[in-house]
Amino acid sequence: MRQYYSYADFKQDVLALAQQVEQDFKPQAIIAILRGGMTLAHFLGLYWDIKEVYAINASSYSSDRTQSTLEINNIPYLDPQHQQVLVVDEIVDSGKSFQGVLRVLKQQYPQVVFKSATLFAQKSARFKADFVLKEAKCWIDFFWEVDLGGSRAP
Amino acid sequence: MRQYYSYADFKQDVLALAQQVEQDFKPQAIIAILRGGMTLAHFLGLYWDIKEVYAINASSYSSDRTQSTLEINNIPYLDPQHQQVLVVDEIVDSGKSFQGVLRVLKQQYPQVVFKSATLFAQKSARFKADFVLKEAKCWIDFFWEVDLGGSRAP
Repeated sequence: MRQYYSYADFKQDVLALAQQVEQDFKPQAIIAILRGGMTLAHFLGLYWDIKEVYAINASSYSSDRTQSTLEINNIPYLDPQHQQVLVVDEIVDSGKSFQGVLRVLKQQYPQVVFKSATLFAQKSARFKADFVLKEAKCWIDFFWEVDLGGSRAP
Repeated sequence: MRQYYSYADFKQDVLALAQQVEQDFKPQAIIAILRGGMTLAHFLGLYWDIKEVYAINASSYSSDRTQSTLEINNIPYLDPQHQQVLVVDEIVDSGKSFQGVLRVLKQQYPQVVFKSATLFAQKSARFKADFVLKEAKCWIDFFWEVDLGGSRAP
């Protein structure tokens, strides 16, 4: 089973996620996990008028069928004045990327409070984000993956 | 005069821009200029199935009314195997960000061919991107700036 996730859905959901975050966190900067979190971070940055939108790369490389290695690159420079930072991705599948990213960020910036936000999360994920909008009940085709009919389109 | 630029316009235009680029460049990695180039880079990365999507921060700080200083941060790490890299932003106004970004990227990676792509460019811009889809004839309200009705909405 797969579900198409349209721009219309996204527009509504980003607003709902932003409102959820605002209830107990005031981000001074946003970090997008690439690639999945890019569009979400872009919208949130504009919505809150936060110029400090950054990115971090997290990629899994399969070394064999059962194991995969997470590689994290391009840890952004954070202004020491920014103590509250929101890390965003579009979906938490296993949670491995989010966990890895937060681990390196906390290591590099021990004084910063990092919170995580996502549109979707798998119930089975070992990582629980601070702000989750919806449970992912099937495979989701995000509009940025399929609307152009590129190589990722089904 | 201002023009609303919808997601429907964007979807069509990203495809047209991608096709323009493909005619004489085969990017192995994409760098988004933040924040403006984020959604564009996300879509292009998925369309071409390029996992190597990175980000760079370029911000202008006005020191007085006539002068502004460009600050560039978070130069991404590039895999030495990637010799053709596309740098993207949504619009070229003065061209200062693009010029600054390309200058630091070329300095850091002298062996890499960087090409620049944008959806819109001002005719008066001192910088000419390699791939430009449309001329910006008025102020453009991009959907990511206004659709959520946030602080940037008119």
